[in-house]
Amino acid sequence: MGLKLDPWGHFAIESYEKLFKQFGIEPIDNVVDKLPKKHHYFTRKIVFGHRDFDKWLNGLHNGERVAVLTGFMPSGHVHLGHVMVFEELRYYQELGVSINVVVADAEAYAVRKIPRKKVFEYAREYITYAYAVGLDPGRTRIYFQTNSDTTYYRLIQLFSRKISMAEMEAIYGELEPAKIMAAFTQAADILHLQLPEYGGYKWVLVPVGADQDPHIRLSRDIADRYGRELGLNRPASTYHKFIRGLDGNKMSSSKPDYAIFLDDDASTIRYKVLNALTGGRATAEEQRRLGGEPWKCTVYELYLYHLFKGDKELLKLYEDCTSGRILCGEDKKRAVKLLLEVIDGLKARAREYSSVVEDYVAFPKF
Amino acid sequence: MGLKLDPWGHFAIESYEKLFKQFGIEPIDNVVDKLPKKHHYFTRKIVFGHRDFDKWLNGLHNGERVAVLTGFMPSGHVHLGHVMVFEELRYYQELGVSINVVVADAEAYAVRKIPRKKVFEYAREYITYAYAVGLDPGRTRIYFQTNSDTTYYRLIQLFSRKISMAEMEAIYGELEPAKIMAAFTQAADILHLQLPEYGGYKWVLVPVGADQDPHIRLSRDIADRYGRELGLNRPASTYHKFIRGLDGNKMSSSKPDYAIFLDDDASTIRYKVLNALTGGRATAEEQRRLGGEPWKCTVYELYLYHLFKGDKELLKLYEDCTSGRILCGEDKKRAVKLLLEVIDGLKARAREYSSVVEDYVAFPKF
Repeated sequence: MGLKLDPWGHFAIESYEKLFKQFGIEPIDNVVDKLPKKHHYFTRKIVFGHRDFDKWLNGLHNGERVAVLTGFMPSGHVHLGHVMVFEELRYYQELGVSINVVVADAEAYAVRKIPRKKVFEYAREYITYAYAVGLDPGRTRIYFQTNSDTTYYRLIQLFSRKISMAEMEAIYGELEPAKIMAAFTQAADILHLQLPEYGGYKWVLVPVGADQDPHIRLSRDIADRYGRELGLNRPASTYHKFIRGLDGNKMSSSKPDYAIFLDDDASTIRYKVLNALTGGRATAEEQRRLGGEPWKCTVYELYLYHLFKGDKELLKLYEDCTSGRILCGEDKKRAVKLLLEVIDGLKARAREYSSVVEDYVAFPKF
Repeated sequence: MGLKLDPWGHFAIESYEKLFKQFGIEPIDNVVDKLPKKHHYFTRKIVFGHRDFDKWLNGLHNGERVAVLTGFMPSGHVHLGHVMVFEELRYYQELGVSINVVVADAEAYAVRKIPRKKVFEYAREYITYAYAVGLDPGRTRIYFQTNSDTTYYRLIQLFSRKISMAEMEAIYGELEPAKIMAAFTQAADILHLQLPEYGGYKWVLVPVGADQDPHIRLSRDIADRYGRELGLNRPASTYHKFIRGLDGNKMSSSKPDYAIFLDDDASTIRYKVLNALTGGRATAEEQRRLGGEPWKCTVYELYLYHLFKGDKELLKLYEDCTSGRILCGEDKKRAVKLLLEVIDGLKARAREYSSVVEDYVAFPKF
């Protein structure tokens, strides 16, 4: 009942609740007021939880060296789920924070077993759209795991000293060699920015999906154990939800019919949205009488994440839907129109950046 | 009985026999005739076994690109056991072969848990004595695992794709994360010389102690699986015995009383050798009557490995001993004299190289 009244932030939040209890992730609510600038991701609890984000924000307020790092796994074409992360980074860049993006190409090849050539094709697409969303190429550091330098690799080699197999298994479950390599590589990604060679950032924030929390936990353990040797602070992290696919499950390139890809053409997008799972009733009459259920609706989620940035218009939609004033057909058509505007804009800007990106992806040898 | 008649090559060979049967290592005998130049390590079966050494030798004969790579774990002071490996490398360098030495500093820190500063102190000593034994600094490539470059590190990251945990455990037994990292690092050490960036050597020989065979097996498996992708051949390997310590067990820096260190002073060396375990009898009378048992004697082993390079003088000693013509006291005094000559010579040459070595060990930051 309480959930129904919240026009944002309750989608599948139940499954995230256990993260708060089991792993000590804090709800985002208690730090939202400290943000120098609001963003609907925070107020709508799309970014729903954190670790030590308050410390990071204090560092920002106090003029200390702060940075953001996040990673992309180039394992498929760019879809709307990725756009959210690019937008999150753009928000931090606007705050004047150092932005660092790692392309997890080693993990894509070794763990996900994607051919190297494919990995680089996807990476090209990711980077192009990161810029298209608004990241400034001149102020954004993007690097590939397999194309970094010696000090970074030294961390990967040396961190394993202080982590036992039992600890790894407690964090990750069953392990294969490739996953162990990937875990220490991610730890180096997260922690290397604190070294003087990489800017000596005191507070590093890692915005991730909740499924990436194991890497955060490992990195925080390593930071604790190398505190004296390397002077590392624990990294901070925020956790975002994933926009659902149009079938109501996680949006994923492995289910292309239910994901909105940036390179989908207009008719494909129209077809997908018009066939999306909604919170509508069985008949129009019933819907006018009972109202729709937006908390079940994947089209409402498009508005929540991407199409309505203003809270007032989102709230009006929510009320129009739950009161039965608007029906799904009409709502979907508007979503298609707005979504095509967003995606056409991104496509146009992506074309401008395609030559900038070529520099990055010139080394796919093995 | 048969063993007794062999003045070389039978020391603890029983424990090596199973390597032939269980792991398919070939006896060295069948390739000794193909060596372009004899060395007493081969004729005395100090180097007792191999894999694909015949292929490597064919490559050498046919003028193909051949290289040797071996590694040092800088985990203690240099002792006579290490000198043997330096001498083996010197022999190959004389044949005109490319010589590559990896300092396993990542493994020393992460697996053996030696402080980084100590690792570099030991490494300085190893490199200095490698030159003192006769390696040419201008023609020897020495690198540290934590101070290499991107393509090498890329191999470490990517090789794990095709090796499962079950396969790792079959090769190495129980594993910790640090051992897994070290294993893939060693695979990169062994295989990277075949890449064009590192000389594109077609045939790479890795002379190791038998305890290092797991790394050889892993590297050969990886070479098979990346044959098409990277064009890798299986590495060849030779296996040497270890000179025993003066108590009859493996010479090791962890038992300093029974090892001969290069930085021991003359009186320490004299004391150690005079107290060494021999194959002598209970009384001088008995020894004259029955003869000594050189196959039990650690002093005889000093002659076998280091002091008598000519086979005739070694054979004479063997006969003098087994026939009871020479007693242990006299034999030990001569060993001390010859050993001090060898070590004083190495020390003198080591001093000449100390400044050359400083370039190598200038980066111990973490």
